[in-house]
Amino acid sequence: MSAVAKEGDVVLLVSPDGKRYLIRLKPAEEWHCHKGCIRHDDLIGRPLGRTMHTQHGYAMLALEPSTHDLIHELPRTTQIIYSKDAAQIVMRLSLYPGRTVVEAGTGSAGLTLMLARSVMPSGRVYSYETRPESFDMARSNLEDLGLLPHVTLYNEDITGGFHETDVDAVFLDLREPWLFLNHAWAALKGSGFFGSLIPTVNQAEQLVAGLQALPYGDIHMEEIIIRPWKTVAARLRPADRMIAHSAFLIFARKIEAGDESLSWMPDKKRRAYRGKQAMAEREAEREAEALRLEALDILPPLADDQHDAE
Amino acid sequence: MSAVAKEGDVVLLVSPDGKRYLIRLKPAEEWHCHKGCIRHDDLIGRPLGRTMHTQHGYAMLALEPSTHDLIHELPRTTQIIYSKDAAQIVMRLSLYPGRTVVEAGTGSAGLTLMLARSVMPSGRVYSYETRPESFDMARSNLEDLGLLPHVTLYNEDITGGFHETDVDAVFLDLREPWLFLNHAWAALKGSGFFGSLIPTVNQAEQLVAGLQALPYGDIHMEEIIIRPWKTVAARLRPADRMIAHSAFLIFARKIEAGDESLSWMPDKKRRAYRGKQAMAEREAEREAEALRLEALDILPPLADDQHDAE
Amino acid sequence: MSAVAKEGDVVLLVSPDGKRYLIRLKPAEEWHCHKGCIRHDDLIGRPLGRTMHTQHGYAMLALEPSTHDLIHELPRTTQIIYSKDAAQIVMRLSLYPGRTVVEAGTGSAGLTLMLARSVMPSGRVYSYETRPESFDMARSNLEDLGLLPHVTLYNEDITGGFHETDVDAVFLDLREPWLFLNHAWAALKGSGFFGSLIPTVNQAEQLVAGLQALPYGDIHMEEIIIRPWKTVAARLRPADRMIAHSAFLIFARKIEAGDESLSWMPDKKRRAYRGKQAMAEREAEREAEALRLEALDILPPLADDQHDAE
Amino acid sequence: MSAVAKEGDVVLLVSPDGKRYLIRLKPAEEWHCHKGCIRHDDLIGRPLGRTMHTQHGYAMLALEPSTHDLIHELPRTTQIIYSKDAAQIVMRLSLYPGRTVVEAGTGSAGLTLMLARSVMPSGRVYSYETRPESFDMARSNLEDLGLLPHVTLYNEDITGGFHETDVDAVFLDLREPWLFLNHAWAALKGSGFFGSLIPTVNQAEQLVAGLQALPYGDIHMEEIIIRPWKTVAARLRPADRMIAHSAFLIFARKIEAGDESLSWMPDKKRRAYRGKQAMAEREAEREAEALRLEALDILPPLADDQHDAE
Repeated sequence: MSAVAKEGDVVLLVSPDGKRYLIRLKPAEEWHCHKGCIRHDDLIGRPLGRTMHTQHGYAMLALEPSTHDLIHELPRTTQIIYSKDAAQIVMRLSLYPGRTVVEAGTGSAGLTLMLARSVMPSGRVYSYETRPESFDMARSNLEDLGLLPHVTLYNEDITGGFHETDVDAVFLDLREPWLFLNHAWAALKGSGFFGSLIPTVNQAEQLVAGLQALPYGDIHMEEIIIRPWKTVAARLRPADRMIAHSAFLIFARKIEAGDESLSWMPDKKRRAYRGKQAMAEREAEREAEALRLEALDILPPLADDQHDAE
Repeated sequence: MSAVAKEGDVVLLVSPDGKRYLIRLKPAEEWHCHKGCIRHDDLIGRPLGRTMHTQHGYAMLALEPSTHDLIHELPRTTQIIYSKDAAQIVMRLSLYPGRTVVEAGTGSAGLTLMLARSVMPSGRVYSYETRPESFDMARSNLEDLGLLPHVTLYNEDITGGFHETDVDAVFLDLREPWLFLNHAWAALKGSGFFGSLIPTVNQAEQLVAGLQALPYGDIHMEEIIIRPWKTVAARLRPADRMIAHSAFLIFARKIEAGDESLSWMPDKKRRAYRGKQAMAEREAEREAEALRLEALDILPPLADDQHDAE
Repeated sequence: MSAVAKEGDVVLLVSPDGKRYLIRLKPAEEWHCHKGCIRHDDLIGRPLGRTMHTQHGYAMLALEPSTHDLIHELPRTTQIIYSKDAAQIVMRLSLYPGRTVVEAGTGSAGLTLMLARSVMPSGRVYSYETRPESFDMARSNLEDLGLLPHVTLYNEDITGGFHETDVDAVFLDLREPWLFLNHAWAALKGSGFFGSLIPTVNQAEQLVAGLQALPYGDIHMEEIIIRPWKTVAARLRPADRMIAHSAFLIFARKIEAGDESLSWMPDKKRRAYRGKQAMAEREAEREAEALRLEALDILPPLADDQHDAE
Repeated sequence: MSAVAKEGDVVLLVSPDGKRYLIRLKPAEEWHCHKGCIRHDDLIGRPLGRTMHTQHGYAMLALEPSTHDLIHELPRTTQIIYSKDAAQIVMRLSLYPGRTVVEAGTGSAGLTLMLARSVMPSGRVYSYETRPESFDMARSNLEDLGLLPHVTLYNEDITGGFHETDVDAVFLDLREPWLFLNHAWAALKGSGFFGSLIPTVNQAEQLVAGLQALPYGDIHMEEIIIRPWKTVAARLRPADRMIAHSAFLIFARKIEAGDESLSWMPDKKRRAYRGKQAMAEREAEREAEALRLEALDILPPLADDQHDAE
């Protein structure tokens, strides 16, 4: 998007009290608010970064919308995805031009637009959505932003699996993502990037357990928290209120099926792995000792391998 | 990068205790650690997502590195930029294929690689660095990742300004970014995206004051905080320790010079603007009242417009 | 404690690199570190707030320890309780001189000392601990601080309940606090304060469910997070690292058994309560409609009360 | 306060939607809300922890208010102090029965009530407030809670200093606390506890610089952040929104005037101290070397003590 607004562009208007509005420019149309109206024709063909005025003299700053603005201000039928989470997802899934990524569900395409902007022009997003109203809104939002050529939208459920294989990344934004871990695995290339977003810790427990039971490795769980500040130089301080929680992000990597060496897995499995190694070593020592004692005709002491669960 | 590792690829090895190593594959070379070695030839031409073993039987998971891994594990001569911040910067600056962005300074190219991955193949990063050792390391890092074709590196200081004009975004990672706000303004297209990263609140005060004194609008300041969790499903809880602080992020938009309507500016200026409006209204009322009283030959009361600064 | 240190006082030594040591003053004794020693006799009978020097000239600041220092530096056999959590617990349990509080388990008495300092001289802490080594250390720590007269220590388990009734507050620091909610209820006065501390979300789920199944109300769950700053005025910024997690705090109030009106309960129960009300209203409307249709000899449509779980 | 409500008691009513109201019980009075009224006589002489109903059948849970409720729900003319901060202040200032503490300004006595509850019955709070309307409200709030006997309230400013000396702690809740650090020092006992609360980082810079320029040590700055959770066991998650910021807390200890050994001071001064030590050692080495070279009739190399400021 150039600095000059064109017909069809999506433009951001920011009001003096910080409200933000997206409008799609069409000749002869008007944007209305309770403080008056602004004519699209006063924007088309003219540079952005200017203050516009309604006929009542109310000021509005006209800007090119950022990815943040698009994600937060697009029409939606579903729970919002926060731009802070979308940014982290793109980075963790290692998306860049040329990559392929499968997404389920599409929702209102808030994340989809960020995925598409990351992998275009040579890459592709494959996005699945069951609810027809979300599917329609996603298509409409992507079309308005000119991103539809980079996205394959399916109005299908995924209980039968994904159409794609060998993709670079799979992202699940579903209520029960742990039900689809096998499908995600089948769609991913080796070493491919898995991600998911869930709002509750109950879901997190299920998803982490599911990933650890399957050939996934390098599992991470994290929260992204944004703390906004008030931009008054002489009285600089954080804002009064902030978002406390949007979702937990969980990431993992596809590894080879049948890969028995789970030693690089985090925490619990690693501890179990080390415990087993330690036990094997002790067992070997004990056998050696038993053989030695046997040679001496003495009974070995009783084994005591119990240790604290934590 | 395909799922099969090739000569020249940068590969990630993850050890059982969570350590992460980047290696660039070269035939006949070996990677050494205190637990033994792994031969590059055992990786070249074979799929990733597998457990490798050193000659001592120590396991290492071989993966394609994510953008996060590249940012955090690349060799560097400078302060690290955190991937959480880099991700937010790309999103807030609205970078995607085809965009142009100016960066100063380059440092070890941790952010540069993320910028390049965002705007390539048709966009471009212009990055300035004065220190020769950082400049050399940045070039080497970008070359290793195949990103150098998308970046113009300058071993120059920016006191004389940038070579570019009409770019989509400018990002300043400098000790005193407020000294270069005019240069950034000159390089940006109208409505263009400005960003900066500074570690202390003293710097933040200066930068915010500088932005408000110039034709910049829509100023935001924020911190990105990552809270990692331990991925043990049966005892799910946040990690014990976390990064408390990396940097403050400050974003703004270029607006037209001479734009007198500051009403959309945040907080202080808005308050001042409204205060002036209110005073003007009161003044008009007073004049009207004075005229009325004059007609009646009565003296108006003394004006008292002083109010608390906050 | 006066500003002059006396025999038997516990004194804090702070080293130039921020290390903190508690010592209990005894005539003719010496405190040793790798930088030299300090004689207790140089502290006894002299004011605090002074820099002491070891015989090698190494400086140590001698201070009266704060409650924070006592909690964090006392000898312990168990997981630490953080002073930030202890402070919030005292405030949420509304403890002040004259109150009675039951605690299980005692651990090393880190929380006990804060509880005792809050309710003494006329109130009392009743604290239960099963492990003999913790019990002994708790007694020793409380004795050193002169707080033992305000605490009744039991080396008992609580599966049979508490000896006390009608206490102002009960605090459970146990692995499975939900098993003892009936005992806590029996010990509390009406409207009494319940609190508990658990590290994992799995435990939190069980505890919240347990409280909601019993006559407890006004349930709160929260985390206390401390963000430390570096105190360098010219480069003011948060510390690099911080504690990410110590524990979840859960609070509730004892309410009358058999109190059927659950409408003031939070979230889920409230929603259920409102859902039932709404259903009852719809049912009444439907019956009225059915009667009306019956009069007209028309069949009413099938009821469909299913709605989304969230 | 016993479990049975008495005339004069302050009681908390919690509504089904989580609203909290404090009422002071008086015979024959009624508490009104838009859902109906509750007669004080239905509470007086009866146990708390019960659900009351308005004449319209609307339920309200009647509870003894916690310290948290008193701090947050008392009438006020000033900025609220948050109970999380008040709890941390009491703990960091090491307040317990018998201690003396000076506070300025009183505000509406939100912190004062917590201080009084901590040091009573044998300790005392001395609190200064200039604004008459705050002074009157503070007195009225403390009287309602029966805490006035433990507090000396001054309707005075503190530019001339405090009346007290040798107190255990001083807490400043003022716009420019750095102006009164000498007065605080004069009022404190040796090793005494200083604390202050300020909302902006600009104030924090001034206060930290002020403390470091005077005989204060063990300086800490921190923020207390509360993250509330939704208490729905089957969908456990943090609340949607939270308080992002109330204030920065700064603590320090009085040390002896003229104490030249600043080595235990944090960060900057410590670094300077170590720098000086290192330089002294190098200087000594150089002198020894010079003497040795002199003996050999060779010139020593030029000293180069410049090092990076950070």
